[in-house]
Amino acid sequence: MNAILHSSKLHPAPHPVNECDTPALLLDFDKLGRNITKLHSGVLAPVKVRAHGKAHKCPDLAKLQIAHGAIGICCQKLSEAEKFFEAGIQDIVISNQIVGELKVKRLVGLALAMKNSGATLGVCVDHELGLQQLAAALSDAKAGGGVIHVWVELDVGQGRCGVQSSAEVIALVEKIVQCKGMQFAGVQAYHGRLQHQRSVEQRLGTANEMFAKVRGVLDALLTNAASWGLSLPIAVAGGGTGSYKLEAASSLYTEIQAGSYALMDADYQRNEMPEDERFENALTVLCTVMSERTGQIVVDAGLKAFAVDSGLPVAIQPGLHVKGISDEHTVIEVTDLSLQPLIGKKLELIPGHCDPTVNLHHEFNVIQNGRVIAKWPIAAKGAGF
Amino acid sequence: MNAILHSSKLHPAPHPVNECDTPALLLDFDKLGRNITKLHSGVLAPVKVRAHGKAHKCPDLAKLQIAHGAIGICCQKLSEAEKFFEAGIQDIVISNQIVGELKVKRLVGLALAMKNSGATLGVCVDHELGLQQLAAALSDAKAGGGVIHVWVELDVGQGRCGVQSSAEVIALVEKIVQCKGMQFAGVQAYHGRLQHQRSVEQRLGTANEMFAKVRGVLDALLTNAASWGLSLPIAVAGGGTGSYKLEAASSLYTEIQAGSYALMDADYQRNEMPEDERFENALTVLCTVMSERTGQIVVDAGLKAFAVDSGLPVAIQPGLHVKGISDEHTVIEVTDLSLQPLIGKKLELIPGHCDPTVNLHHEFNVIQNGRVIAKWPIAAKGAGF
Repeated sequence: MNAILHSSKLHPAPHPVNECDTPALLLDFDKLGRNITKLHSGVLAPVKVRAHGKAHKCPDLAKLQIAHGAIGICCQKLSEAEKFFEAGIQDIVISNQIVGELKVKRLVGLALAMKNSGATLGVCVDHELGLQQLAAALSDAKAGGGVIHVWVELDVGQGRCGVQSSAEVIALVEKIVQCKGMQFAGVQAYHGRLQHQRSVEQRLGTANEMFAKVRGVLDALLTNAASWGLSLPIAVAGGGTGSYKLEAASSLYTEIQAGSYALMDADYQRNEMPEDERFENALTVLCTVMSERTGQIVVDAGLKAFAVDSGLPVAIQPGLHVKGISDEHTVIEVTDLSLQPLIGKKLELIPGHCDPTVNLHHEFNVIQNGRVIAKWPIAAKGAGF
Repeated sequence: MNAILHSSKLHPAPHPVNECDTPALLLDFDKLGRNITKLHSGVLAPVKVRAHGKAHKCPDLAKLQIAHGAIGICCQKLSEAEKFFEAGIQDIVISNQIVGELKVKRLVGLALAMKNSGATLGVCVDHELGLQQLAAALSDAKAGGGVIHVWVELDVGQGRCGVQSSAEVIALVEKIVQCKGMQFAGVQAYHGRLQHQRSVEQRLGTANEMFAKVRGVLDALLTNAASWGLSLPIAVAGGGTGSYKLEAASSLYTEIQAGSYALMDADYQRNEMPEDERFENALTVLCTVMSERTGQIVVDAGLKAFAVDSGLPVAIQPGLHVKGISDEHTVIEVTDLSLQPLIGKKLELIPGHCDPTVNLHHEFNVIQNGRVIAKWPIAAKGAGF
């Protein structure tokens, strides 16, 4: 693990965390390592881990996950896949649809470049139009056989993307196996809401409904597998930080796509969970107290440093309670008045939701024993798809 | 106005809006121009407009506001002020506290560079520590007289930054006028919550309470003005898109700091307002429909393209109702089924809150008559303070 860390090109002279100007995104290297190890200990062979790069958008972190045994990375956007491949990641799945002629042309360009260097790119489809655009772009590029691995996304209860029935899955797979440039990769079956259901029982109940749906689709596919020349078992990908042990033990899923486990956030910590299965908060934002009155402080990080779609950030230090946020400020109630004065001091807050918070910053300050030991660029950040 | 537009160095060959890849931040040039004109028609001399650059973080847009009569720009962060000055803006106020030795040293560096080129930088204070750090940095830099304009922030009801009493204002002003490198600039008196109170009556009531507090502070300052050598009237800055006409007519405020009026967003449109005073939604995000089922579509822009602290984005097209958002997706209910199929089509959504949404993108696609006529970099974006 330290070999990976020290291979980072941007390794600066180590300096105390407190010398970071604020707001600064901090990533605790030891907690990160323990989180990665814990996930792998819960996903046993033949099930594999394909770490979700959308959570961190950081090739250095992706390489650390692969060094720990992940087979590769998945991500949500073509722009992320481009950055991960550019940084040397060799096995990437875009666990999402890519629609629109401009983007699909870029997608095929990336797939060809990856194929030529012995790497593998996957993508999802859930609609005939997306598949047609992909086939047309492959044809325009005179692509050879099996240039891109195509997963069919099944809606397993999330109600977002994905087809809804076995018949729709079969209709798409039939077209995929007939297209020379494509290779059918399996079924994408991720359930986002499941991840954030608070009780263990709720998550188990939802997962069992999901498994029944996946099993039905697999049974339908197996009927046709020989005629399509599919190799068995049919791959199924999904699972997240809130549910990965369930998918891993399901005998259905072959790849686990958890992402938040590495960094964690305040929202995931609200899930009920056995203490020894809990991941650690490796991700915080260092802030400076810029204004103060009795019982209240304001720090210099607001909506440009924290995403709040899943709730406000949470103070690490006892006696501080975050009560509001605006563009450039977070207002914190000081419930333990003995802590004051605090003006000018630095303190850490845990983001409510890691993925869109990371997207606001340009680098992780990787810390160990109170020092910044590396700076890892968040290379795939941005609104671009 | 067109002269400003056409001076943009990044003016590309105009192309149809529909050729933008998605998600793309669109800014309607004609609506923008009408919004700026409308604001100025509601702020009469001697009251001035100092447009708030935190809303757009874009020097090209700041120059357009100045060409329309704004005396300069205000912003919320040192990193924004640096970018605006670098782009040629000559009169900048950071309407916020800058605390922490690293940042204060940068602040003084910027103030000296601006002073040397005949430009003016202002900043706020609300605590003795911030003032001490500023005085020390000016002293270390051997700064000459009046290098930085210092505003004292008064809390006029927001409950965030700002001192709370006339006595505290006076204590800070006494120190400012004794510090050679500083020039006392006036009282910063912005009320953020007031901007978003929905009814005209609520806003009037809150504004009147605010005016009483400002008047009390001004009376206290006037008692000392002669002994401090202050020129009269004492400047008061504040006001926003929801309340600017009230501050402008108050006989107290000398500078109006509205920002959102230029772009607008869905949240501000929820304010009750006479129709002829309403600003137009000049800002949208162009998205592609990437997944579809009967009664529902999903577009390729989520939390990395929209800030949702003030609510979900809103579809422009009738028959579409945004019902959820996640990292890379926005789920939209299709209430008018005759609109389908929509897969692969592009459509525009109005962000819930303009400032943190703009911060997620790297450029405005400036549009007119269905064509992209310029691309304006969002030069001051980022989490850095």
